[in-house]
Amino acid sequence: MVTSMTTSWMHISVDSPFSIHNIPFGVISSEDNPTHRPGVVIGDYVLDLAIFTANSGFSNLACIQSHLNVFAQKTLNDFAALGRPIHREVRNYLRLVFQHNGPYASVLETNATLQILALLPLSTIQNHLPLQIGDYTDFYAGLNHAYNVGVLFRGKDNALQPNYKHIPIGYHGRASSVVVSGTPIHRPNGQILPDSVLTPKVPTFGPCKKLDIELELAAFVCIPTTLGQPVPASSAEEYIFGFTLMNDWSARDIQAWEYVPLGPFTSKNFGTTISPWVVLVDALEPFRAPSSLSTSIETLLPYLHQPNPNTMFDISLTVELRPSGLSEKYTIAKANSRDLLFSFAQMLAHHTVTGCNMRTGDLLGSGTISGREPGTLGSLLEATKNGKEPLALGEGLKRTFLEDGDEVIISGRAGVLGRYIGFGECNGIILPAPSV
Amino acid sequence: MVTSMTTSWMHISVDSPFSIHNIPFGVISSEDNPTHRPGVVIGDYVLDLAIFTANSGFSNLACIQSHLNVFAQKTLNDFAALGRPIHREVRNYLRLVFQHNGPYASVLETNATLQILALLPLSTIQNHLPLQIGDYTDFYAGLNHAYNVGVLFRGKDNALQPNYKHIPIGYHGRASSVVVSGTPIHRPNGQILPDSVLTPKVPTFGPCKKLDIELELAAFVCIPTTLGQPVPASSAEEYIFGFTLMNDWSARDIQAWEYVPLGPFTSKNFGTTISPWVVLVDALEPFRAPSSLSTSIETLLPYLHQPNPNTMFDISLTVELRPSGLSEKYTIAKANSRDLLFSFAQMLAHHTVTGCNMRTGDLLGSGTISGREPGTLGSLLEATKNGKEPLALGEGLKRTFLEDGDEVIISGRAGVLGRYIGFGECNGIILPAPSV
Repeated sequence: MVTSMTTSWMHISVDSPFSIHNIPFGVISSEDNPTHRPGVVIGDYVLDLAIFTANSGFSNLACIQSHLNVFAQKTLNDFAALGRPIHREVRNYLRLVFQHNGPYASVLETNATLQILALLPLSTIQNHLPLQIGDYTDFYAGLNHAYNVGVLFRGKDNALQPNYKHIPIGYHGRASSVVVSGTPIHRPNGQILPDSVLTPKVPTFGPCKKLDIELELAAFVCIPTTLGQPVPASSAEEYIFGFTLMNDWSARDIQAWEYVPLGPFTSKNFGTTISPWVVLVDALEPFRAPSSLSTSIETLLPYLHQPNPNTMFDISLTVELRPSGLSEKYTIAKANSRDLLFSFAQMLAHHTVTGCNMRTGDLLGSGTISGREPGTLGSLLEATKNGKEPLALGEGLKRTFLEDGDEVIISGRAGVLGRYIGFGECNGIILPAPSV
Repeated sequence: MVTSMTTSWMHISVDSPFSIHNIPFGVISSEDNPTHRPGVVIGDYVLDLAIFTANSGFSNLACIQSHLNVFAQKTLNDFAALGRPIHREVRNYLRLVFQHNGPYASVLETNATLQILALLPLSTIQNHLPLQIGDYTDFYAGLNHAYNVGVLFRGKDNALQPNYKHIPIGYHGRASSVVVSGTPIHRPNGQILPDSVLTPKVPTFGPCKKLDIELELAAFVCIPTTLGQPVPASSAEEYIFGFTLMNDWSARDIQAWEYVPLGPFTSKNFGTTISPWVVLVDALEPFRAPSSLSTSIETLLPYLHQPNPNTMFDISLTVELRPSGLSEKYTIAKANSRDLLFSFAQMLAHHTVTGCNMRTGDLLGSGTISGREPGTLGSLLEATKNGKEPLALGEGLKRTFLEDGDEVIISGRAGVLGRYIGFGECNGIILPAPSV
């Protein structure tokens, strides 16, 4: 049994996001081995699962014996497709392997040869997208964000649309441009309607002047569903592999001109960044909590009901900005993933309600997560009231929207010092717009 | 040289959509060989390209020698990724192979052994999705459709949004539920706001009562583009592999309740049907034509300019409905693909303008193609004025929206009798909604 007192034989800093209680999965390569392959991160090390598997690391785990090839793949899709009971056993087994004087100490703790082969310093590896993404869907479940944006554009009385509290509102995003943390993002050029133009409304073309972030949590789908067969929220969690952080970069001026009547398109599809490590649902189980938003299940249609009122996870989220040319970074938002009106299970249930099928590797974004107060807002659109009130970073520095060279760093974690279930970072730096 | 007088040694009915001038590509399987593999259709036969290749069918074609494995794949993605110059050579070569007394008569015309091996009766094969679709994007380039729908919901004065003539409006669709012709479609259940409900707006749950079609043309992307690097319309055609017909099934009542503010979602993602054969761009070259819609290129931003004013193809489109339980089918719309305001090159240019990357197998839908007159409308929403004016099919039969058991058949072709460049059929039959 892995108990709450588990300690590892590895040195793991107490502030590491990757405690022995976490064991998130990713896809790595290294300088001496450019092949993409699965790994898990613990402390400052990555366990190369391809090498670990090839060296009988899993020989004590019966459930995975006929599926060992999933760790020889270039993505986690095949592992994810095995389903949550197997993810659970594999993660629990790896925790025991890392446990000091655990039942499987001979696998790695006392096996210096395999340690040298399979444990790679985190600083030396390269991360890649953990799964091949089929479809990417972005929801809009951050009620405070939806409200704040609604107030900006429609006023307080009509801030939320009539459907908002009934439907996990979402739209299909662009899978091809989802990139892993660290990938630079080009400022987009696009069609923009100048504020000064009244009629006729003729757009100009040029670099986005309102380049924004969106703080989100995202979930990967593990087992597929069948076309025409909806999955109710009560059983939808079995289809969720785990979570990453997400930054859904947004070009607000392009969005404002293009989004009627079919929603955001080129203002969102130029890049979406996710953190590299997938934190499994089981790792977050101890941090289940209800939504921070008052809602009554009675108002929801039955397919969205979940028996457990703790439909959320208590994950602290932080957005930092490193201004162009500076080494220092400034916290611009702190929020919590409980600030969502709908859970990922409800999102998935709604996504399939008309019969849409999910595939392994599909990615669901939560929508922007914001609190209500200054300092808790997950987009610059909200924090600066659409650019009208610059955000003070300190030392005379301020921002309305992002400038070229700015770097945005999202991080998130559940738990307490020494026992963090963290995500690592979701980073991106802004490159200048292509010349036109 | 393939001349306009080319005749084939095969018997091809003069009304076949698959004349020797066409040679569209698809993916097939057969009862005795369930492996998915590429094929081309001509008349009533399919040439199995896996077998043809394995039996030296391409030994006279230099350009394909180092890529022969593309015909041993389960999709056309690898072939598509070779780019249009190679598609052109392969298609031209196959036309010569099928030409009576052509330069390559020995390959198939006088090779009875290979004919028996590689030519399969069309009626005996099963079609599959021709490419693995990365992302699917649906545009809204049918101006008449946009106008007709705008009139229905906003009146004549505000029918078209101010951005409509500047932007090839589009939204990201759902790739997982794109299915090949012949796949039945379940009527979706979903959230619907009853017409009688005024306030508070509380939805009910049940089967869609306004199940509709959308007549579209669709394009597959061949060579990929790079994230952050837009492609202007002037060179975008090189990224287009070819075309299929599309039926973008739509649940109008679910759509009406859900679509604000992020666009259609579950009302569209339960199924999208495409015809099985990809008609290559080159096959349609003789049928280039300008858009039927008056627009001036001066009003467009430069990235949407195309040097050739013939940005469209003159393809006649027909929608038929076979009512539940009947063998007879009724024509409910005839339209033309020139009834689009923007070309696929312009759609692709706009799609990439902010830097979004395209991948081989990405699918672009045109949006619903409608004329202005009764009998030319590509959706029942338009043809029945949102269900208010039933469409008479004949013999006392009428329809507002689709009923269970109804089958919809879309067909399309360019050219004249004996020389058709046709698509075959894009079919789907409506199954009852799952019980709730």
